[in-house]
Amino acid sequence: MAYELTDKDLLDLATGAALLGTGGGGDPLIGRLLVEQALADGCKVRVLDPDELDDDMLVIASAMMGAPTVVLEKVPSGREAVAALRRLEDHLGRQADAVIPMECGGLNSMIPLLVAARADLPVVDGDGMGRAFPELQMETFGVYGVPASPLAIADERGHTAIVATGADNHRTEWFARALTIRMGGSAYIAEYPMTGAQVKRTAIPRTLRLALTLGRTLREAKQEHRDPFDALIDALKQTPYEHGQVLFSGKVTDVSRHVSDGFTQGHALIHGLDSTGTMRIEFRNENLLATVDDRVVAIVPDLITLLDADTATPVTTETLRYGMRVRVFGISTPPIMRTAAALDVFGPAAFGLTQPWQPLEEIAN
Amino acid sequence: MAYELTDKDLLDLATGAALLGTGGGGDPLIGRLLVEQALADGCKVRVLDPDELDDDMLVIASAMMGAPTVVLEKVPSGREAVAALRRLEDHLGRQADAVIPMECGGLNSMIPLLVAARADLPVVDGDGMGRAFPELQMETFGVYGVPASPLAIADERGHTAIVATGADNHRTEWFARALTIRMGGSAYIAEYPMTGAQVKRTAIPRTLRLALTLGRTLREAKQEHRDPFDALIDALKQTPYEHGQVLFSGKVTDVSRHVSDGFTQGHALIHGLDSTGTMRIEFRNENLLATVDDRVVAIVPDLITLLDADTATPVTTETLRYGMRVRVFGISTPPIMRTAAALDVFGPAAFGLTQPWQPLEEIAN
Repeated sequence: MAYELTDKDLLDLATGAALLGTGGGGDPLIGRLLVEQALADGCKVRVLDPDELDDDMLVIASAMMGAPTVVLEKVPSGREAVAALRRLEDHLGRQADAVIPMECGGLNSMIPLLVAARADLPVVDGDGMGRAFPELQMETFGVYGVPASPLAIADERGHTAIVATGADNHRTEWFARALTIRMGGSAYIAEYPMTGAQVKRTAIPRTLRLALTLGRTLREAKQEHRDPFDALIDALKQTPYEHGQVLFSGKVTDVSRHVSDGFTQGHALIHGLDSTGTMRIEFRNENLLATVDDRVVAIVPDLITLLDADTATPVTTETLRYGMRVRVFGISTPPIMRTAAALDVFGPAAFGLTQPWQPLEEIAN
Repeated sequence: MAYELTDKDLLDLATGAALLGTGGGGDPLIGRLLVEQALADGCKVRVLDPDELDDDMLVIASAMMGAPTVVLEKVPSGREAVAALRRLEDHLGRQADAVIPMECGGLNSMIPLLVAARADLPVVDGDGMGRAFPELQMETFGVYGVPASPLAIADERGHTAIVATGADNHRTEWFARALTIRMGGSAYIAEYPMTGAQVKRTAIPRTLRLALTLGRTLREAKQEHRDPFDALIDALKQTPYEHGQVLFSGKVTDVSRHVSDGFTQGHALIHGLDSTGTMRIEFRNENLLATVDDRVVAIVPDLITLLDADTATPVTTETLRYGMRVRVFGISTPPIMRTAAALDVFGPAAFGLTQPWQPLEEIAN
């Protein structure tokens, strides 16, 4: 049912979103500060369950596009993402009834809340990625037939563009990425305009609640001196992301990382502390593949997140470094992210991996 | 007064447009063939004098954007440029009453005629460059206060974008160029939407007639065995481009040419046949500067065109090669292209040249 987010919720949400960022997606911090400022200004973040949407409502997805590292230097005012929404509304000749997150991991867990607060619109509890992914076409909205475009993009100078590429969502990404680069490496988008009925059919539902739950679970486990990983596993059982599991524990012994084509790419090696071999993590912004001695342990779109072994704080691919003691945590994705159509768009092959997808929980057992 | 263009006009126009291309702008050939096909299909190209425009008419500039060499391999169907116009009309919520060329040199002398024919609109006799220039902000429309955006861009797949950058025409160019590159290196644009009153105030008038006149003059001079350069000089006296002059005659002894940042850049050396020294031509798509032994002879925005010494055929920077015998022909630009505001936008400094602008006719005398 509809509810309002509080400051305290935002802290838990940020922790949960970092976990769902699977190493990428950017630090939610700046987004959280902007939402807190909006709340301090008297704005509200009202969350709507997908079931509460009328079928003919207009819902628009909202996000930051570009490099999260750029956002740290080019801090948004908060107006940019609203400007993108307004631009798309103008183009459509119709006002949005709600916004929905493009992704539920990382910084983009916060941007739609900011838009909702500032534009006085509800935000739908759900998203199009169910985690963080690097490209716009990697959304269940598109997998199940909603075109990404018309897409509006806005920068901090008030400049905008509308991209229209029919049903070709790869082209939407291709054109919008070029504009993002020329807008300085980060920009704000409004995309996948759709009806309430389409949201109910194509969105991964209740991922805002999921992130909140995971963040709250970690916080409470620490307060209660309970093992945070056990607590996460228990909490996940109550969600469509049923299966959580510590895949490996060890010390980071090698990190090879380079930025190319606009992505942070590379791999990390983690040496098992109890002679369990060496885990290799391949990443492209997000962690994509975990293997132990060439045996697949977890593979995209299932979630692979590294957490500090002691504090259970999620570790991003940018901050990963030699000597860190980590636990590699795997989370199974819900069925809507595992269909053949979904795997075509964001399964292993979409990232150039040759290993076939296998469900995390089946590998583990 | 209003008139219709014929097939024979198109041939003369192509020759004149090549001359006004000053080495750049691309071969008008493909554009001419597309317009001929439109005429064969029963379409008309009606030309309106700027004086015939009502002040409140909506006029939209039309052009190909990108590398003319790409157009040779990615031949347009003719629908792309019309699609860009339609996209901008949809955005503005108003239908255009006429189209106007962005530039009068090279391939873009033909694209607006194609749009006019296929969209059944008149084309205004005038343009925003008075020659060929490489970038969208280099237009008298913008110099005198008309914003380049909203700009519509379209590719051969039916994909489009609308770029809106307020009064910042450099940003329009910057964003549209990125889209052009991702559309495969050539695309079609509709830009500088303006009123009839704005056209009368900002356009360089009657440059279509100018190109026609120059082309016809060269054709008739050959038929009448008259010196084509003398004929050009005589013809120019009757136009706002008053002063034409053979600046140099010689043999090309060196061409240094490279494609970088999307432009064909470099220089050519021409050795005088009668011991008059060596002329150096600097070009960036278009010829920008002609010097003899470091003395400036002609400089942008005045026109510098190389013509085959025997046939008086204009030579582009791409086809220039060692051993060619050429005449370097200079043409003065009309006053609207020589104000301080105009020189700020497309004078020598806008191309990174350190030499100050000097009127061609004053250097010569």
